[in-house]
Amino acid sequence: MAAGKSTVGRLVANRLGRRFVDLDERIEELAEKPIARIFGDDGEPAFRRLEARALQTVSAEQDVVVACGGGTPMFEQNTALMRRTGVVVTLRVSFEDVLARTGADVSTRPLLAAGHKSAERLYADREKVYLSADIVVDTGSLLPEQVAAEVVRRAGQRLGDVAVKLGDRSYPIHVAPLARAGELAGEMLRHPSAIAVVTDENVARAGHARAVRASLDAAGHRTIEIVVPPGEGSKSLAQLGRVADACVAGGLDRRSALVAVGGGVVGDLCGFVAAILYRGVRWAQVPTSLLAMVDSAIGGKTGVDLGAGKNLVGAFWQPRFVLADPATLETLPARERTAAFGEVLKTGLLGDAPLFEELERSGQQVDERDVVLRCARLKGAFVEKDEQETAGAAAGGFDRAFLNLGHTVGHAIEAATGGEKLHGECVALGLVAAARIGKAVGLADLEERVAAAVARCGLEADLRPYLRPDVLAYLDSDKKRAGGKLRFIALEGVGRPTAVELTPDEVRRILR
Amino acid sequence: MAAGKSTVGRLVANRLGRRFVDLDERIEELAEKPIARIFGDDGEPAFRRLEARALQTVSAEQDVVVACGGGTPMFEQNTALMRRTGVVVTLRVSFEDVLARTGADVSTRPLLAAGHKSAERLYADREKVYLSADIVVDTGSLLPEQVAAEVVRRAGQRLGDVAVKLGDRSYPIHVAPLARAGELAGEMLRHPSAIAVVTDENVARAGHARAVRASLDAAGHRTIEIVVPPGEGSKSLAQLGRVADACVAGGLDRRSALVAVGGGVVGDLCGFVAAILYRGVRWAQVPTSLLAMVDSAIGGKTGVDLGAGKNLVGAFWQPRFVLADPATLETLPARERTAAFGEVLKTGLLGDAPLFEELERSGQQVDERDVVLRCARLKGAFVEKDEQETAGAAAGGFDRAFLNLGHTVGHAIEAATGGEKLHGECVALGLVAAARIGKAVGLADLEERVAAAVARCGLEADLRPYLRPDVLAYLDSDKKRAGGKLRFIALEGVGRPTAVELTPDEVRRILR
Repeated sequence: MAAGKSTVGRLVANRLGRRFVDLDERIEELAEKPIARIFGDDGEPAFRRLEARALQTVSAEQDVVVACGGGTPMFEQNTALMRRTGVVVTLRVSFEDVLARTGADVSTRPLLAAGHKSAERLYADREKVYLSADIVVDTGSLLPEQVAAEVVRRAGQRLGDVAVKLGDRSYPIHVAPLARAGELAGEMLRHPSAIAVVTDENVARAGHARAVRASLDAAGHRTIEIVVPPGEGSKSLAQLGRVADACVAGGLDRRSALVAVGGGVVGDLCGFVAAILYRGVRWAQVPTSLLAMVDSAIGGKTGVDLGAGKNLVGAFWQPRFVLADPATLETLPARERTAAFGEVLKTGLLGDAPLFEELERSGQQVDERDVVLRCARLKGAFVEKDEQETAGAAAGGFDRAFLNLGHTVGHAIEAATGGEKLHGECVALGLVAAARIGKAVGLADLEERVAAAVARCGLEADLRPYLRPDVLAYLDSDKKRAGGKLRFIALEGVGRPTAVELTPDEVRRILR
Repeated sequence: MAAGKSTVGRLVANRLGRRFVDLDERIEELAEKPIARIFGDDGEPAFRRLEARALQTVSAEQDVVVACGGGTPMFEQNTALMRRTGVVVTLRVSFEDVLARTGADVSTRPLLAAGHKSAERLYADREKVYLSADIVVDTGSLLPEQVAAEVVRRAGQRLGDVAVKLGDRSYPIHVAPLARAGELAGEMLRHPSAIAVVTDENVARAGHARAVRASLDAAGHRTIEIVVPPGEGSKSLAQLGRVADACVAGGLDRRSALVAVGGGVVGDLCGFVAAILYRGVRWAQVPTSLLAMVDSAIGGKTGVDLGAGKNLVGAFWQPRFVLADPATLETLPARERTAAFGEVLKTGLLGDAPLFEELERSGQQVDERDVVLRCARLKGAFVEKDEQETAGAAAGGFDRAFLNLGHTVGHAIEAATGGEKLHGECVALGLVAAARIGKAVGLADLEERVAAAVARCGLEADLRPYLRPDVLAYLDSDKKRAGGKLRFIALEGVGRPTAVELTPDEVRRILR
């Protein structure tokens, strides 16, 4: 009340180029009378029902800045909706300032009219809820323009270039320089008591971990660095224990955080340590490989390998932010960069036809920042719909398993060739296989287009050398098998995936 | 619609000795007119608002059986409320049966009046939601009495003797014979594809794992058994990997489950494997030690030790049921049984004054089943309020950290004596210390009563041998320390805990 919500809200909307919505005005439109009369004629319960309806309407709109009433967040369903669909900002104002600013017009503030004492109690009750907002700005001595600037700055940190919306586990993906790590850690890791930067020897040698650490240190964070050997071998329980031990020895406690700087192996390992250390601490991903930027750094799947197979133990544990700096890709070996296009092609085929068409035309000659943003956006959307890959066939066509496009045959090739081929290279071949299967089951005839695009990106597109018994035998052990059938992801068209159930034998017959 | 909700609901209420509530009647009372007129006069939105209000009212009542309307669970806030406060049952009926049973009185069924085609669509939409209930009973060829019996049987499995209510993660605690493991696994582990029974050598030798396995096998489950060495040494990343590897080798997949049969070590280890295997599978706890029954088996804290200390990595991962059979305690070594009374005394002091008074009178001569039930109830209540121990001081006096009563000094004694004394023995001494500190800070003078009760239970109550520099030094490293102060749990009276902030030096001065 009287914190300057409308004034600051308008300024924020201007700066962000968004529409401003005053929830009170929406309520008055719905009720066709002023707020004071709704309270007077119909009572507070009627007002609250109108308010909830107005909030639902505005929550469905895009690119808005909403000033809500002081009582709006006091109802759990309202706050849940606000958190799910946006960033929640509290403009904090002391009780004395509220009185000073509103003393003159108690008549238009129905809840204040109830008297000073009960207003003070109301303030105390509400403050607890207000302080749980994503962002709290003390308005005390600041001008509205200054408050708006602070809101814009912090909301930008929370929204990022792509926002993955998962309620309390929402997080931003920033495609920006490593030097922003320090400020993002303050906002998104909530000023942790210490930060362990986890990286591998190659990434450390390239200087990326040092750059991240320098940014964290400059922002006043206490940091330690933990370096693991490069390669899939580090995704082991032994390294998990080593990293966790080093965190404890380095003085991390429950309010500390981890930051993974590296590719998929470092991200999977570091994220799993974060998931289990003290039963869970905050963490962030700073992917430095193209594959990690477009795929593995997004979605919170963490884990390590067992003797019995890859990724057999792990946790869903979302990072608090992802910071992808395309400049780090300059040090990436060419083969790794090329392989990542397997996942980029997959993204296009899965839900971004313009991206796929651009890859058909230009191969790897595409804008990296744009590619990272597009892939992050699509992966984020799938993760939002099905965070823990539990939706399965029941989700009616939009579940995280769709991200396995190209991976059924891809995994078989990867497993049978024993690490000789990179993951993205195998996925590219898997995409060709998926296109062939889609055609065979009467969906779309995309094999030639897919194979041409794969080749245009510099990747192997010829399946023949891999249609060997040892590769095809792996289809029997695929984790995605349910009841003797594979849930195979195929395409009805570019950007239009669907699931078909096939036995491993049927897949083998089609591919041969 | 026409599934027999009211008829069956009344029968279920009779069998359970509960009150029956027909939600439609509540709505009509609120509206002061019949349902059909609410629809006719005010429209469906008005009806839905009344329905949500009626559901909120009835959800706050105890020991009721509620028949709700066919549309009630179609609103997320309604289903969330139902799941949070009770067991949700669907009486399934085919669309043909609905028509046959309701054809004659479309006038009183407003949604059917809209016509056959749209009713069929409505049925299909709703069925998806209905099938996500906790319990689905096919009513097809059953008489109402038979349907009611089935609901009572399955609801009993879900409610148990004590219900821990955590929304989607709610689970029952059954104090019952091991022979019930099989049926509970079917209902609560959702007919898993395979079950790994994890136990230790001592418990295996006593025959408890065999009894559980026999019950599981008899119920048609496919089981394997994994045995670890007894003792804290098994809470290691090495054993974690060994058990996980054995699960994979034994053919467990994502729809499989684990069952821990043993004490705290087996529960913590097995639960952690369940939390991370394939990023999380279902599991159950079958505690066979008194300490596990009254404390560690409840609450979902799982984990293993690192070189750097105990319980440093783990996860909050709730079991799907707890089955505690007091008969297994017959094989428990006397010293272990006695030590468990340290935690039982803690429960009494924390929130069950009659239990504490009984221990003062009778020591260990108490009814075991009753003790297990009382401890489970209190622990469950704390877990419900603060599942992940995140509430901290902000929770206003009811957070999971209160369960640490007696543990600050208890842990120091345990750590300094290097495993020479059992956990419960140390907690008992810690309770005496907590009483002394409570008196010193002006709370309650309970030291003599606590010490007498501890001695009455056969436990050491004399702190003097432990007020040594090596013990007291451990207070500096307590995990619960925040900002240089310990958050020490003390007592305002029996059953009335509170938190006081003290520096380690202040604690040492008081104890000496």
